Amino acid sequence: MNQTFTFSRRQLFGGLALSGLSGGLLSVLNAEKKSIPGRIRLQKGMTILFQGDSITDAGRQNRKSPKVNDQKSMGNGYAGMAASALLASRSSWNLNIFNRGISGNKVHQLDARWQSDCLDHRPDVLSILIGVNDIWHGLTGRYDGTVQRYENDYMALIERTRMALPKVQLVICEPFVLKCGAVDEKWFPEFDHYRAVARKVASQNSATFVPFQEMFDRALSFAPAQHWARDGVHPSHHGSALMADFWLQAVRG
Amino acid sequence: MNQTFTFSRRQLFGGLALSGLSGGLLSVLNAEKKSIPGRIRLQKGMTILFQGDSITDAGRQNRKSPKVNDQKSMGNGYAGMAASALLASRSSWNLNIFNRGISGNKVHQLDARWQSDCLDHRPDVLSILIGVNDIWHGLTGRYDGTVQRYENDYMALIERTRMALPKVQLVICEPFVLKCGAVDEKWFPEFDHYRAVARKVASQNSATFVPFQEMFDRALSFAPAQHWARDGVHPSHHGSALMADFWLQAVRG
Repeated sequence: MNQTFTFSRRQLFGGLALSGLSGGLLSVLNAEKKSIPGRIRLQKGMTILFQGDSITDAGRQNRKSPKVNDQKSMGNGYAGMAASALLASRSSWNLNIFNRGISGNKVHQLDARWQSDCLDHRPDVLSILIGVNDIWHGLTGRYDGTVQRYENDYMALIERTRMALPKVQLVICEPFVLKCGAVDEKWFPEFDHYRAVARKVASQNSATFVPFQEMFDRALSFAPAQHWARDGVHPSHHGSALMADFWLQAVRG
Repeated sequence: MNQTFTFSRRQLFGGLALSGLSGGLLSVLNAEKKSIPGRIRLQKGMTILFQGDSITDAGRQNRKSPKVNDQKSMGNGYAGMAASALLASRSSWNLNIFNRGISGNKVHQLDARWQSDCLDHRPDVLSILIGVNDIWHGLTGRYDGTVQRYENDYMALIERTRMALPKVQLVICEPFVLKCGAVDEKWFPEFDHYRAVARKVASQNSATFVPFQEMFDRALSFAPAQHWARDGVHPSHHGSALMADFWLQAVRG
Protein backbone atom coordinates (compact mmCIF):
# COMPACT_ATOMS: atom_id res chain seq x y z
CA MET A 1 0.00 0.00 0.00
CA ASN A 2 1.17 3.46 -0.83
CA GLN A 3 2.19 4.96 2.48
CA THR A 4 1.81 8.48 1.28
CA PHE A 5 -1.45 9.86 2.41
CA THR A 6 -3.26 10.46 -0.84
CA PHE A 7 -5.81 13.14 -0.37
CA SER A 8 -7.36 12.55 -3.74
CA ARG A 9 -8.73 9.17 -2.83
CA ARG A 10 -11.08 10.58 -0.27
CA GLN A 11 -13.06 13.71 0.13
CA LEU A 12 -11.61 16.02 2.74
CA PHE A 13 -9.59 13.32 4.45
CA GLY A 14 -13.00 11.84 5.17
CA GLY A 15 -12.31 8.79 7.28
CA LEU A 16 -9.10 10.11 8.69
CA ALA A 17 -10.79 12.94 10.42
CA LEU A 18 -7.94 15.33 10.80
CA SER A 19 -9.24 18.71 9.80
CA GLY A 20 -9.00 21.80 11.81
CA LEU A 21 -7.80 23.29 15.05
CA SER A 22 -10.20 21.29 16.99
CA GLY A 23 -11.07 19.32 13.93
CA GLY A 24 -9.08 16.41 15.21
CA LEU A 25 -11.18 16.20 18.30
CA LEU A 26 -14.30 17.15 16.46
CA SER A 27 -13.80 14.69 13.72
CA VAL A 28 -13.38 11.81 16.07
CA LEU A 29 -16.73 12.94 17.31
CA ASN A 30 -18.14 12.63 13.83
CA ALA A 31 -19.77 9.32 14.50
CA GLU A 32 -21.32 10.72 17.64
CA LYS A 33 -22.38 14.02 16.22
CA LYS A 34 -26.03 13.25 16.36
CA SER A 35 -25.82 13.39 20.12
CA ILE A 36 -24.09 16.75 20.23
CA PRO A 37 -26.30 19.83 19.95
CA GLY A 38 -24.88 22.81 18.15
CA ARG A 39 -22.47 21.01 15.88
CA ILE A 40 -22.91 21.15 12.16
CA ARG A 41 -23.59 17.81 10.55
CA LEU A 42 -22.71 18.37 6.95
CA GLN A 43 -24.17 15.80 4.61
CA LYS A 44 -24.29 15.17 0.91
CA GLY A 45 -26.79 17.20 -1.05
CA MET A 46 -27.22 19.85 1.62
CA THR A 47 -27.96 23.49 0.89
CA ILE A 48 -25.76 26.04 2.65
CA LEU A 49 -26.74 29.69 2.78
CA PHE A 50 -24.61 32.63 3.85
CA GLN A 51 -26.46 35.69 5.12
CA GLY A 52 -25.29 39.03 6.38
CA ASP A 53 -24.08 42.47 5.39
CA SER A 54 -21.27 43.83 3.22
CA ILE A 55 -18.68 41.53 4.78
CA THR A 56 -20.66 38.57 3.52
CA ASP A 57 -21.84 40.28 0.32
CA ALA A 58 -18.30 41.19 -0.76
CA GLY A 59 -19.22 42.41 -4.22
CA ARG A 60 -21.29 39.46 -5.36
CA GLN A 61 -23.12 39.61 -8.67
CA ASN A 62 -26.34 38.06 -10.00
CA ARG A 63 -28.23 39.41 -7.01
CA LYS A 64 -31.73 38.81 -8.27
CA SER A 65 -31.10 35.22 -9.21
CA PRO A 66 -27.86 34.01 -7.70
CA LYS A 67 -26.42 30.90 -9.25
CA VAL A 68 -25.58 27.98 -7.03
CA ASN A 69 -21.89 27.21 -6.39
CA ASP A 70 -20.79 30.15 -8.54
CA GLN A 71 -18.00 32.51 -7.59
CA LYS A 72 -19.57 35.61 -9.12
CA SER A 73 -22.74 34.94 -7.14
CA MET A 74 -20.73 34.29 -3.99
CA GLY A 75 -18.54 37.39 -3.98
CA ASN A 76 -14.92 37.90 -3.04
CA GLY A 77 -15.11 37.52 0.72
CA TYR A 78 -15.00 34.78 3.31
CA ALA A 79 -18.20 33.22 2.02
CA GLY A 80 -16.80 32.70 -1.46
CA MET A 81 -13.50 31.46 -0.12
CA ALA A 82 -15.18 29.02 2.25
CA ALA A 83 -17.52 27.86 -0.49
CA SER A 84 -14.72 27.13 -2.93
CA ALA A 85 -12.82 25.18 -0.30
CA LEU A 86 -15.88 23.12 0.56
CA LEU A 87 -16.71 22.46 -3.07
CA ALA A 88 -13.15 21.53 -4.01
CA SER A 89 -12.69 19.24 -1.02
CA ARG A 90 -16.10 17.58 -1.31
CA SER A 91 -16.70 17.67 -5.02
CA SER A 92 -18.86 14.55 -4.99
CA TRP A 93 -21.11 15.74 -2.20
CA ASN A 94 -23.42 17.79 -4.42
CA LEU A 95 -23.55 20.65 -1.99
CA ASN A 96 -25.59 23.70 -2.96
CA ILE A 97 -24.08 26.93 -1.69
CA PHE A 98 -25.61 30.39 -1.91
CA ASN A 99 -24.75 33.83 -0.62
CA ARG A 100 -27.50 36.39 -0.06
CA GLY A 101 -25.64 38.91 2.08
CA ILE A 102 -26.40 42.56 1.26
CA SER A 103 -24.16 45.48 1.96
CA GLY A 104 -25.33 47.81 4.70
CA ASN A 105 -27.81 45.44 6.25
CA LYS A 106 -28.77 45.44 9.90
CA VAL A 107 -30.84 42.69 11.53
CA HIS A 108 -34.19 44.30 10.80
CA GLN A 109 -33.25 44.52 7.13
CA LEU A 110 -32.52 40.82 7.04
CA ASP A 111 -35.96 40.29 8.50
CA ALA A 112 -37.57 42.41 5.80
CA ARG A 113 -36.23 40.16 3.06
CA TRP A 114 -36.04 36.89 4.97
CA GLN A 115 -38.79 34.99 3.16
CA SER A 116 -37.32 35.35 -0.30
CA ASP A 117 -33.65 35.59 0.59
CA CYS A 118 -33.49 32.90 3.24
CA LEU A 119 -36.54 30.76 3.96
CA ASP A 120 -37.35 30.13 0.31
CA HIS A 121 -33.89 28.60 -0.14
CA ARG A 122 -34.77 26.07 2.57
CA PRO A 123 -31.16 25.91 3.75
CA ASP A 124 -29.93 22.92 5.72
CA VAL A 125 -27.09 25.05 7.07
CA LEU A 126 -27.63 28.77 7.59
CA SER A 127 -24.69 30.99 8.45
CA ILE A 128 -25.34 34.55 9.64
CA LEU A 129 -22.88 37.37 10.24
CA ILE A 130 -24.70 40.54 11.24
CA GLY A 131 -24.26 43.37 13.70
CA VAL A 132 -21.53 45.77 12.71
CA ASN A 133 -23.97 48.11 10.94
CA ASP A 134 -26.40 47.90 13.86
CA ILE A 135 -23.82 49.79 15.90
CA TRP A 136 -21.93 51.63 13.14
CA HIS A 137 -24.99 53.31 11.64
CA GLY A 138 -25.88 54.42 15.14
CA LEU A 139 -22.46 55.97 15.66
CA THR A 140 -22.78 57.85 12.37
CA GLY A 141 -26.28 59.08 13.15
CA ARG A 142 -28.02 57.06 10.45
CA TYR A 143 -29.83 54.73 12.83
CA ASP A 144 -31.24 54.94 16.31
CA GLY A 145 -30.80 51.31 17.23
CA THR A 146 -29.57 50.03 20.56
CA VAL A 147 -27.91 46.85 21.68
CA GLN A 148 -31.27 45.84 23.14
CA ARG A 149 -32.94 46.24 19.78
CA TYR A 150 -30.14 44.22 18.19
CA GLU A 151 -30.82 41.43 20.66
CA ASN A 152 -34.57 41.58 20.28
CA ASP A 153 -34.42 41.67 16.49
CA TYR A 154 -31.80 38.90 16.29
CA MET A 155 -33.65 36.60 18.69
CA ALA A 156 -36.89 37.17 16.78
CA LEU A 157 -35.24 36.48 13.44
CA ILE A 158 -33.84 33.19 14.67
CA GLU A 159 -37.15 32.21 16.20
CA ARG A 160 -38.88 32.93 12.91
CA THR A 161 -36.27 30.89 11.10
CA ARG A 162 -36.58 27.91 13.40
CA MET A 163 -40.37 27.99 13.12
CA ALA A 164 -40.16 27.88 9.33
CA LEU A 165 -37.18 25.52 9.15
CA PRO A 166 -37.24 23.32 12.24
CA LYS A 167 -34.25 21.25 11.14
CA VAL A 168 -32.00 24.09 10.05
CA GLN A 169 -28.46 23.99 11.43
CA LEU A 170 -27.34 27.44 12.48
CA VAL A 171 -23.93 29.06 12.34
CA ILE A 172 -23.84 32.39 14.18
CA CYS A 173 -20.70 34.42 13.43
CA GLU A 174 -19.33 36.93 15.89
CA PRO A 175 -19.33 40.55 14.67
CA PHE A 176 -15.82 41.96 14.78
CA VAL A 177 -13.81 45.10 14.18
CA LEU A 178 -10.14 45.91 13.92
CA LYS A 179 -8.99 49.03 15.73
CA CYS A 180 -8.00 51.09 12.71
CA GLY A 181 -9.60 53.08 9.90
CA ALA A 182 -13.17 53.96 10.80
CA VAL A 183 -13.02 52.19 14.15
CA ASP A 184 -11.98 54.36 17.08
CA GLU A 185 -12.53 54.42 20.81
CA LYS A 186 -16.12 55.57 20.40
CA TRP A 187 -17.03 52.01 19.44
CA PHE A 188 -16.16 50.68 22.88
CA PRO A 189 -17.31 49.24 25.13
CA GLU A 190 -20.64 49.27 23.29
CA PHE A 191 -19.36 47.04 20.52
CA ASP A 192 -18.42 44.39 23.04
CA HIS A 193 -22.07 44.26 24.10
CA TYR A 194 -23.12 43.61 20.50
CA ARG A 195 -20.62 40.77 20.32
CA ALA A 196 -21.97 39.34 23.53
CA VAL A 197 -25.48 39.39 22.09
CA ALA A 198 -24.38 37.36 19.07
CA ARG A 199 -22.80 34.83 21.40
CA LYS A 200 -25.99 34.71 23.45
CA VAL A 201 -28.12 34.19 20.36
CA ALA A 202 -25.88 31.29 19.38
CA SER A 203 -25.90 29.77 22.82
CA GLN A 204 -29.64 29.98 23.29
CA ASN A 205 -30.25 28.39 19.92
CA SER A 206 -27.64 25.61 20.08
CA ALA A 207 -25.93 27.23 17.13
CA THR A 208 -22.30 26.84 16.18
CA PHE A 209 -20.52 30.05 17.10
CA VAL A 210 -17.56 31.33 15.08
CA PRO A 211 -15.48 33.69 17.24
CA PHE A 212 -14.17 36.07 14.59
CA GLN A 213 -13.24 38.81 17.08
CA GLU A 214 -11.08 36.49 19.11
CA MET A 215 -9.55 35.19 15.90
CA PHE A 216 -8.60 38.67 14.70
CA ASP A 217 -7.36 39.66 18.14
CA ARG A 218 -4.98 36.72 18.01
CA ALA A 219 -3.99 37.43 14.43
CA LEU A 220 -2.60 40.83 15.48
CA SER A 221 0.54 39.07 16.64
CA PHE A 222 1.16 38.06 13.02
CA ALA A 223 0.24 41.30 11.24
CA PRO A 224 -1.18 44.69 12.20
CA ALA A 225 -4.87 45.57 12.07
CA GLN A 226 -4.61 47.18 8.63
CA HIS A 227 -3.44 43.93 7.10
CA TRP A 228 -6.73 42.29 8.06
CA ALA A 229 -9.13 45.19 7.38
CA ARG A 230 -7.89 48.53 6.17
CA ASP A 231 -10.94 50.44 7.37
CA GLY A 232 -11.34 48.30 10.46
CA VAL A 233 -14.61 46.81 9.24
CA HIS A 234 -14.24 45.27 5.78
CA PRO A 235 -11.69 42.44 5.65
CA SER A 236 -8.88 42.38 3.14
CA HIS A 237 -8.30 39.21 1.15
CA HIS A 238 -6.06 38.11 4.00
CA GLY A 239 -8.74 38.82 6.57
CA SER A 240 -11.29 37.00 4.45
CA ALA A 241 -9.02 33.98 4.07
CA LEU A 242 -8.57 33.79 7.82
CA MET A 243 -12.31 34.05 8.34
CA ALA A 244 -12.94 31.32 5.80
CA ASP A 245 -10.54 29.08 7.67
CA PHE A 246 -12.24 29.58 11.02
CA TRP A 247 -15.68 29.20 9.46
CA LEU A 248 -14.59 25.95 7.84
CA GLN A 249 -13.15 24.67 11.10
CA ALA A 250 -16.53 25.23 12.69
CA VAL A 251 -18.54 23.62 9.90
CA ARG A 252 -16.47 20.79 8.48
CA GLY A 253 -16.69 17.55 10.34
CA MET B 1 -3.20 27.08 30.64
CA ASN B 2 -4.04 25.88 27.20
CA GLN B 3 -6.03 28.75 25.78
CA THR B 4 -6.48 27.12 22.46
CA PHE B 5 -8.23 24.14 23.89
CA THR B 6 -10.45 26.38 25.96
CA PHE B 7 -11.20 28.30 22.83
CA SER B 8 -12.02 25.22 20.85
CA ARG B 9 -14.47 23.84 23.34
CA ARG B 10 -16.23 26.81 24.71
CA GLN B 11 -16.14 29.29 21.91
CA LEU B 12 -15.87 27.58 18.59
CA PHE B 13 -18.54 25.16 19.62
CA GLY B 14 -20.87 27.68 21.13
CA GLY B 15 -21.00 26.68 24.73
CA LEU B 16 -20.96 22.94 24.34
CA ALA B 17 -19.78 21.03 27.33
CA LEU B 18 -17.27 18.57 25.96
CA SER B 19 -15.00 18.42 28.95
CA GLY B 20 -16.17 15.00 29.95
CA LEU B 21 -15.36 13.60 26.56
CA SER B 22 -12.09 15.23 25.68
CA GLY B 23 -9.61 13.00 27.45
CA GLY B 24 -10.78 9.77 25.95
CA LEU B 25 -11.26 11.23 22.52
CA LEU B 26 -7.85 12.81 22.49
CA SER B 27 -6.34 9.47 23.33
CA VAL B 28 -8.20 7.89 20.46
CA LEU B 29 -7.04 10.67 18.19
CA ASN B 30 -3.43 10.33 19.27
CA ALA B 31 -3.49 6.62 18.68
CA GLU B 32 -5.07 7.20 15.30
CA LYS B 33 -2.42 9.69 14.28
CA LYS B 34 0.44 7.46 15.24
CA SER B 35 -0.98 4.72 13.10
CA ILE B 36 -1.09 6.81 9.95
CA PRO B 37 2.25 6.89 8.16
CA GLY B 38 2.97 10.10 6.34
CA ARG B 39 0.59 12.12 8.44
CA ILE B 40 1.88 15.26 10.11
CA ARG B 41 1.90 15.16 13.88
CA LEU B 42 1.92 18.78 14.86
CA GLN B 43 3.03 19.45 18.41
CA LYS B 44 3.63 22.43 20.64
CA GLY B 45 6.86 24.31 20.10
CA MET B 46 7.49 22.89 16.64
CA THR B 47 9.26 24.78 13.87
CA ILE B 48 7.54 24.81 10.51
CA LEU B 49 9.42 25.88 7.39
CA PHE B 50 7.98 26.65 3.97
CA GLN B 51 10.31 26.25 1.01
CA GLY B 52 9.85 26.75 -2.69
CA ASP B 53 9.77 29.29 -5.48
CA SER B 54 7.81 32.48 -6.17
CA ILE B 55 4.50 30.87 -5.26
CA THR B 56 5.82 30.30 -1.76
CA ASP B 57 7.91 33.50 -1.67
CA ALA B 58 4.96 35.72 -2.57
CA GLY B 59 6.72 39.00 -1.97
CA ARG B 60 8.11 38.33 1.47
CA GLN B 61 10.46 40.83 3.09
CA ASN B 62 13.34 40.54 5.59
CA ARG B 63 14.99 37.94 3.36
CA LYS B 64 18.36 37.88 5.03
CA SER B 65 17.01 37.47 8.52
CA PRO B 66 13.34 36.53 8.37
CA LYS B 67 11.42 37.05 11.58
CA VAL B 68 9.49 34.18 13.03
CA ASN B 69 5.68 34.26 12.82
CA ASP B 70 5.76 37.59 11.02
CA GLN B 71 3.55 38.42 8.07
CA LYS B 72 6.10 40.56 6.25
CA SER B 73 8.62 37.74 6.49
CA MET B 74 6.00 35.22 5.33
CA GLY B 75 4.72 37.01 2.25
CA ASN B 76 1.25 37.32 0.79
CA GLY B 77 0.72 33.81 -0.51
CA TYR B 78 -0.54 30.48 0.76
CA ALA B 79 2.33 30.17 3.24
CA GLY B 80 1.44 33.40 5.00
CA MET B 81 -2.25 32.58 4.95
CA ALA B 82 -1.68 29.12 6.35
CA ALA B 83 0.71 30.46 8.96
CA SER B 84 -1.76 33.06 10.22
CA ALA B 85 -4.50 30.46 10.48
CA LEU B 86 -2.26 28.10 12.43
CA LEU B 87 -1.04 30.83 14.73
CA ALA B 88 -4.52 32.21 15.38
CA SER B 89 -6.03 28.82 16.03
CA ARG B 90 -3.16 27.53 18.18
CA SER B 91 -1.96 30.67 19.84
CA SER B 92 -0.70 28.84 22.91
CA TRP B 93 1.29 26.25 20.98
CA ASN B 94 4.39 28.41 20.54
CA LEU B 95 4.83 27.36 16.95
CA ASN B 96 7.73 28.89 15.02
CA ILE B 97 6.91 29.44 11.38
CA PHE B 98 9.30 30.59 8.66
CA ASN B 99 9.16 31.02 4.91
CA ARG B 100 12.35 30.81 2.86
CA GLY B 101 10.88 30.40 -0.62
CA ILE B 102 12.69 32.36 -3.34
CA SER B 103 11.19 33.49 -6.61
CA GLY B 104 12.46 31.67 -9.69
CA ASN B 105 13.95 28.71 -7.86
CA LYS B 106 14.27 25.24 -9.31
CA VAL B 107 15.25 22.20 -7.27
CA HIS B 108 18.97 22.60 -7.81
CA GLN B 109 18.73 26.17 -6.54
CA LEU B 110 17.09 24.98 -3.37
CA ASP B 111 19.99 22.58 -2.97
CA ALA B 112 22.51 25.38 -3.38
CA ARG B 113 21.12 27.28 -0.40
CA TRP B 114 19.77 24.35 1.59
CA GLN B 115 22.18 24.47 4.52
CA SER B 116 21.48 28.06 5.50
CA ASP B 117 17.89 28.32 4.28
CA CYS B 118 16.59 24.98 5.46
CA LEU B 119 18.81 22.69 7.54
CA ASP B 120 20.03 25.45 9.84
CA HIS B 121 16.42 26.16 10.81
CA ARG B 122 16.14 22.53 12.00
CA PRO B 123 12.46 22.37 11.03
CA ASP B 124 10.19 19.78 12.58
CA VAL B 125 7.81 20.18 9.64
CA LEU B 126 9.22 21.04 6.22
CA SER B 127 6.85 21.92 3.40
CA ILE B 128 8.20 22.11 -0.15
CA LEU B 129 6.50 23.32 -3.31
CA ILE B 130 8.89 23.22 -6.25
CA GLY B 131 8.77 22.27 -9.90
CA VAL B 132 7.00 24.80 -12.04
CA ASN B 133 10.22 26.63 -12.92
CA ASP B 134 11.99 23.34 -13.62
CA ILE B 135 9.67 22.96 -16.62
CA TRP B 136 8.82 26.61 -17.33
CA HIS B 137 12.41 27.80 -17.65
CA GLY B 138 12.97 24.92 -20.02
CA LEU B 139 10.02 25.93 -22.17
CA THR B 140 11.36 29.49 -22.36
CA GLY B 141 14.89 28.37 -23.22
CA ARG B 142 16.49 29.52 -19.94
CA TYR B 143 17.21 26.03 -18.64
CA ASP B 144 18.02 22.67 -20.12
CA GLY B 145 16.50 20.54 -17.39
CA THR B 146 14.43 17.45 -17.94
CA VAL B 147 11.84 15.63 -15.91
CA GLN B 148 14.54 13.07 -15.11
CA ARG B 149 16.80 15.77 -13.70
CA TYR B 150 13.87 17.11 -11.67
CA GLU B 151 13.37 13.66 -10.20
CA ASN B 152 17.05 13.07 -9.53
CA ASP B 153 17.55 16.49 -7.96
CA TYR B 154 14.38 16.27 -5.88
CA MET B 155 15.13 12.77 -4.59
CA ALA B 156 18.67 13.82 -3.71
CA LEU B 157 17.49 16.93 -1.91
CA ILE B 158 15.10 14.91 0.21
CA GLU B 159 17.75 12.31 0.94
CA ARG B 160 20.12 15.05 2.04
CA THR B 161 17.40 16.52 4.21
CA ARG B 162 16.54 13.25 5.89
CA MET B 163 20.20 12.52 6.57
CA ALA B 164 20.59 15.88 8.30
CA LEU B 165 17.16 15.89 9.97
CA PRO B 166 16.13 12.27 10.55
CA LYS B 167 12.93 13.19 12.37
CA VAL B 168 11.72 15.87 9.98
CA GLN B 169 8.11 15.55 8.89
CA LEU B 170 7.75 16.28 5.19
CA VAL B 171 4.97 17.94 3.26
CA ILE B 172 5.44 17.66 -0.50
CA CYS B 173 3.12 19.91 -2.47
CA GLU B 174 2.06 19.10 -5.99
CA PRO B 175 3.21 21.60 -8.64
CA PHE B 176 0.22 22.96 -10.51
CA VAL B 177 -0.77 25.25 -13.35
CA LEU B 178 -4.01 26.75 -14.55
CA LYS B 179 -4.60 26.69 -18.29
CA CYS B 180 -4.50 30.41 -18.91
CA GLY B 181 -1.99 33.24 -19.19
CA ALA B 182 1.48 31.87 -19.78
CA VAL B 183 0.31 28.25 -19.72
CA ASP B 184 -0.60 26.79 -23.08
CA GLU B 185 -0.69 23.39 -24.71
CA LYS B 186 3.11 23.27 -24.97
CA TRP B 187 3.22 22.48 -21.26
CA PHE B 188 1.47 19.16 -21.74
CA PRO B 189 1.79 16.28 -21.28
CA GLU B 190 5.28 17.06 -19.94
CA PHE B 191 3.95 18.98 -16.96
CA ASP B 192 1.95 15.95 -15.88
CA HIS B 193 5.21 14.01 -15.65
CA TYR B 194 6.64 16.65 -13.31
CA ARG B 195 3.56 16.37 -11.14
CA ALA B 196 3.94 12.61 -11.08
CA VAL B 197 7.53 13.00 -9.90
CA ALA B 198 6.45 15.14 -6.96
CA ARG B 199 3.89 12.52 -6.00
CA LYS B 200 6.57 9.81 -6.30
CA VAL B 201 8.99 11.79 -4.13
CA ALA B 202 6.26 12.09 -1.50
CA SER B 203 5.34 8.44 -1.69
CA GLN B 204 8.88 7.14 -1.44
CA ASN B 205 9.56 9.34 1.58
CA SER B 206 6.31 8.79 3.50
CA ALA B 207 5.60 12.48 3.09
CA THR B 208 2.21 14.11 3.26
CA PHE B 209 1.21 15.01 -0.27
CA VAL B 210 -0.94 18.06 -0.98
CA PRO B 211 -2.64 17.65 -4.36
CA PHE B 212 -2.86 21.26 -5.50
CA GLN B 213 -3.43 20.39 -9.16
CA GLU B 214 -6.41 18.23 -8.36
CA MET B 215 -7.68 20.94 -6.05
CA PHE B 216 -7.50 23.62 -8.74
CA ASP B 217 -9.00 21.29 -11.34
CA ARG B 218 -11.98 20.84 -9.06
CA ALA B 219 -12.15 24.55 -8.29
CA LEU B 220 -12.75 25.32 -11.97
CA SER B 221 -16.40 24.41 -11.46
CA PHE B 222 -16.66 27.36 -9.06
CA ALA B 223 -14.64 29.98 -10.98
CA PRO B 224 -12.56 30.11 -14.17
CA ALA B 225 -8.81 29.61 -14.29
CA GLN B 226 -8.05 33.33 -14.23
CA HIS B 227 -9.79 33.70 -10.88
CA TRP B 228 -7.22 31.38 -9.32
CA ALA B 229 -4.09 32.49 -11.19
CA ARG B 230 -4.18 35.21 -13.81
CA ASP B 231 -0.98 34.10 -15.52
CA GLY B 232 -1.68 30.44 -14.93
CA VAL B 233 1.26 30.07 -12.54
CA HIS B 234 1.07 32.61 -9.71
CA PRO B 235 -2.05 32.30 -7.60
CA SER B 236 -4.35 35.20 -6.88
CA HIS B 237 -5.38 35.86 -3.31
CA HIS B 238 -8.27 33.50 -3.95
CA GLY B 239 -5.96 30.81 -5.27
CA SER B 240 -3.66 31.30 -2.31
CA ALA B 241 -6.55 31.04 0.15
CA LEU B 242 -7.66 27.78 -1.42
CA MET B 243 -4.10 26.45 -1.25
CA ALA B 244 -3.80 27.47 2.38
CA ASP B 245 -6.98 25.57 3.15
CA PHE B 246 -5.80 22.37 1.50
CA TRP B 247 -2.36 22.69 3.08
CA LEU B 248 -3.97 23.12 6.50
CA GLN B 249 -6.21 20.13 5.96
CA ALA B 250 -3.10 18.08 5.34
CA VAL B 251 -1.13 19.40 8.30
CA ARG B 252 -3.50 20.13 11.15
CA GLY B 253 -4.17 17.23 13.45
